[in-house]
Amino acid sequence: MLGMMQDWEMRVSALLDYAASEQPEREIVTHWADGSETRTDWRGLRRDALKMVQALRRLDVYPEARVATLGMNHARHLTAWFGVTGAGCVLHTINPRLFDDQLDYIVNHAQDRVLLYDAAFQPIVDRMKPRWPTIEHYICFDSGEHAPAFEDWIGREDGAAFWSPGDEHQPCMLCYTSGTTGHPKGVLYSNRTNVLHTLAMIAPSCLAIEPRSCVLPVVPMFHANNWGLPWACAATGAKMVYSQVNDPEVLCRLMEQERVSHVGGVPTVWFSLFQHLDETGADLPPFKVALSGGSAVPYSVVERLMRNGVRVMQAWGMTETSPIATVTWEPPEWDDMSFEEQVAYKSSQGRQVFGSEVRVVSLDGGGAELPHDGTSAGALQVRGGWTIRRYFGETDDATGGGQWFETGDVATISPSGVLRLTDRTKDLIKSGGEWISSVELENAAVRHPDVLEAAAIGVPHPRWTERPVLVVVRRPGAALSEEDLCGFLSGMVAKWWLPDAVEFVAAIPHTGSGKVSKKELRALYRDYRLPA
Amino acid sequence: MLGMMQDWEMRVSALLDYAASEQPEREIVTHWADGSETRTDWRGLRRDALKMVQALRRLDVYPEARVATLGMNHARHLTAWFGVTGAGCVLHTINPRLFDDQLDYIVNHAQDRVLLYDAAFQPIVDRMKPRWPTIEHYICFDSGEHAPAFEDWIGREDGAAFWSPGDEHQPCMLCYTSGTTGHPKGVLYSNRTNVLHTLAMIAPSCLAIEPRSCVLPVVPMFHANNWGLPWACAATGAKMVYSQVNDPEVLCRLMEQERVSHVGGVPTVWFSLFQHLDETGADLPPFKVALSGGSAVPYSVVERLMRNGVRVMQAWGMTETSPIATVTWEPPEWDDMSFEEQVAYKSSQGRQVFGSEVRVVSLDGGGAELPHDGTSAGALQVRGGWTIRRYFGETDDATGGGQWFETGDVATISPSGVLRLTDRTKDLIKSGGEWISSVELENAAVRHPDVLEAAAIGVPHPRWTERPVLVVVRRPGAALSEEDLCGFLSGMVAKWWLPDAVEFVAAIPHTGSGKVSKKELRALYRDYRLPA
Ligand SMILES: Nc1ncnc2c1ncn2[C@@H]1O[C@H](COP(=O)(O)O)[C@@H](O)[C@H]1O
Repeated sequence: MLGMMQDWEMRVSALLDYAASEQPEREIVTHWADGSETRTDWRGLRRDALKMVQALRRLDVYPEARVATLGMNHARHLTAWFGVTGAGCVLHTINPRLFDDQLDYIVNHAQDRVLLYDAAFQPIVDRMKPRWPTIEHYICFDSGEHAPAFEDWIGREDGAAFWSPGDEHQPCMLCYTSGTTGHPKGVLYSNRTNVLHTLAMIAPSCLAIEPRSCVLPVVPMFHANNWGLPWACAATGAKMVYSQVNDPEVLCRLMEQERVSHVGGVPTVWFSLFQHLDETGADLPPFKVALSGGSAVPYSVVERLMRNGVRVMQAWGMTETSPIATVTWEPPEWDDMSFEEQVAYKSSQGRQVFGSEVRVVSLDGGGAELPHDGTSAGALQVRGGWTIRRYFGETDDATGGGQWFETGDVATISPSGVLRLTDRTKDLIKSGGEWISSVELENAAVRHPDVLEAAAIGVPHPRWTERPVLVVVRRPGAALSEEDLCGFLSGMVAKWWLPDAVEFVAAIPHTGSGKVSKKELRALYRDYRLPA
Repeated sequence: MLGMMQDWEMRVSALLDYAASEQPEREIVTHWADGSETRTDWRGLRRDALKMVQALRRLDVYPEARVATLGMNHARHLTAWFGVTGAGCVLHTINPRLFDDQLDYIVNHAQDRVLLYDAAFQPIVDRMKPRWPTIEHYICFDSGEHAPAFEDWIGREDGAAFWSPGDEHQPCMLCYTSGTTGHPKGVLYSNRTNVLHTLAMIAPSCLAIEPRSCVLPVVPMFHANNWGLPWACAATGAKMVYSQVNDPEVLCRLMEQERVSHVGGVPTVWFSLFQHLDETGADLPPFKVALSGGSAVPYSVVERLMRNGVRVMQAWGMTETSPIATVTWEPPEWDDMSFEEQVAYKSSQGRQVFGSEVRVVSLDGGGAELPHDGTSAGALQVRGGWTIRRYFGETDDATGGGQWFETGDVATISPSGVLRLTDRTKDLIKSGGEWISSVELENAAVRHPDVLEAAAIGVPHPRWTERPVLVVVRRPGAALSEEDLCGFLSGMVAKWWLPDAVEFVAAIPHTGSGKVSKKELRALYRDYRLPA
């Protein structure tokens, strides 16, 4: 026996229909790289997306085909999100910071048939074209110099079309992640998982996005489903602000000018924002909610945001989890917590969102679930309504028993369910049979006022197997010494965790998605000789 | 091709798992009819629900069986919600205010096998037992005088059980509605529709329920899925407060004492609350959100709530829509609206919630969709993710083309999508080929300070087919005359809408769910002779 309610397929196109019906004139603002600004609204965006559906059909690009984008954040890219998925095709957002071999691999693996790209990436297109045989059509988001221009391409259509109907389990989006070893792997989201993730993330205990919100996703659109923000904004008809460039001055002006309420960015975004404010003496524009993820946001950054009245929502997740799985929702005792306790909680990875489950299991084989005691660090696993089952094109599931997916992160869970990442599995430093958390070392180091950035890696040691070396970027003008820093750290971490050496450098290498590249760092220090 | 994300069935049991995992010690408070108070928490509730699963299995009550309740609002009833659905059975909440013939009809129609009831309803049970042959087991929520007591019954189990697994489309709940003509009709909710409705209603643009919330559902648990509040609270681990009695003094004390943030009730609840406050000179306890539905809440009530800082969320819906379909979410221009405009908007039935669609179609056959002009009144239709397809046990769908369900309400939709109910189809008064809205007449009348309650009905008229008669309950001690009232009304409604007669009465008949019973009223005035 089944319930007797209506059939209702959860399709991402329905989100756009809702926005266009309820808030047709709510704007989507774009700041372009050339400094110009354009405005459309949900009604306009829907009309353009429908035109794009027609334009794709005219190219014989039909449901299930992969349509790729190589673009920064702007309204035309957003139109492509809804146009591609509305045509029943799969939107493949490519990270332009990938290396050529990766760009080669993922386009051929996805068998992309169309590529829409920013003119700024013309060099990539020119270089890669011979290696991308599956791509039949190139469309340029900006000008029509080297390829048909997007506006011209859809401009020939009248928009009198319908979304491609279908099952909610049909795919709508493909994001590759290079967070794992080997080739990048594709995560194929379905319409259903994106709608469910949307409903979870607009909740008051998550982002609290509602019709009055104005959302500025600084996180790139090619990054992990743009954190789900386009879908979440459509689901409420919220205003959106996109910038093709990440200049903090531009971002601050947009926040003021457009009355932004929600900003989503990785920790680097907050760093550069604060640096800009310090340099100019300006105030933080008055936005309400900061969604931070991608890597751990330091205590000091959380503190500064909170002192400015911002509600900090640190979330943990991965491309494989759509991405939000846990978030720092405020518990009932929130108002009774001291400011320091509040900041400390907001510096954690938060708690489960309904629809996602996390657990930590023993690192040393066996996989026994570890207690929620806040100290037992184990391999973090996740499962739920918007977590991956199998990578695109693979024949085996990426999950183990009970659908648990191995995240590669190391974490503890407190008795009240607070998740704290202590490391990535492969970034742990094993010293004398014990684990040292590079993340905790780094977090401790960046609390020193003279430290701009810090990364800890393990280097081979004859006696202890590995010992930590801390690579540090000093604040400009600061005269911090190794002794100073180790003295500072000794109050915060166990004595045997103290680094055997501190290396002061001008810059630390980052990955294409802006995270510290431990891989590159390890390569750089491969032949490093620890002081005797 | 399908997406490659995990299988995740939306089951209501998962909501309780979430609450028990994230907020095990968050309380569920019950004020019992005898004045006592008991407290359990989400962990305790889950344990008891699992015991109930075992107890049902011991009675050979297996998935798909209907288990009925005849109870007011309390934690044991809530345990039954999760115990019955967790066993894979269908919870049938019976409205104890139904007439015997209806009670007979629905229990036999549902083929209920178990009945859990409040001791206060022992007379109903005694009376109906011979007419309820399908019921094999009676369990009393309170004492064990006439039937096994609930606590004893589940007390024999250890709770070491699992929820019955299954497909999200399996049913979990059955609510009969007598809002239609003929026999009551059953609405069979699925696990999926209840979870989707939950996600929609906790959204910031709807109820904004989150982990810190404390929810007092004054709406009875047997009324339209308790408006979805038990599921919504579990989905966030919110605190719940239930009272077995609806005494305003008790409700006010509970609000203060338990720091209630959300109250859900029909307009009558607000009337009696304000009457109590006026009598005692007390202040309105400081809650944040008032969910009002079931019938239109008057402007004056909205105004008073809002003056007290309460966010009024008037929702429109029906048992057939789980029930929330539209709600008065604040549009972006909210802060620029005058207080009067805000109150007027909150007195409407609101706008579409993502997942539900409404439209109005021509009343006079044809069913052409009417424009969103705020004046074209038509038959209101609804469809969506948690709207009925077919009544339980029927062979035909209750919906027409495009899955549209006919609500029996008459409404307008404004250019910005604001729904305003003007009447129920069957309550319209047809005078000289034109419609008079009884609801608007009543709304106008109750704005007179001396009118406590008013109901308009159409009585046969030789020339005009029907003419309105207004039945009025005067405020105690008031000396309002028919002339006074008609003078007052003539400033507010069209001249030809003015009632042909005003009848002052001591009380107006109500239905089991607290609405004015137009049916009874019409019967009372069947032979009414209009003044010449
Ligand atoms: N906010 C509201 N304003 C006016 N009438 C309402 C409202 N909510 C529900 N109703 C009425 O109640 C009916 C549903 O009744 P029920 O199924 O008993 O909840 C609707 O069809 C409307 O006639």
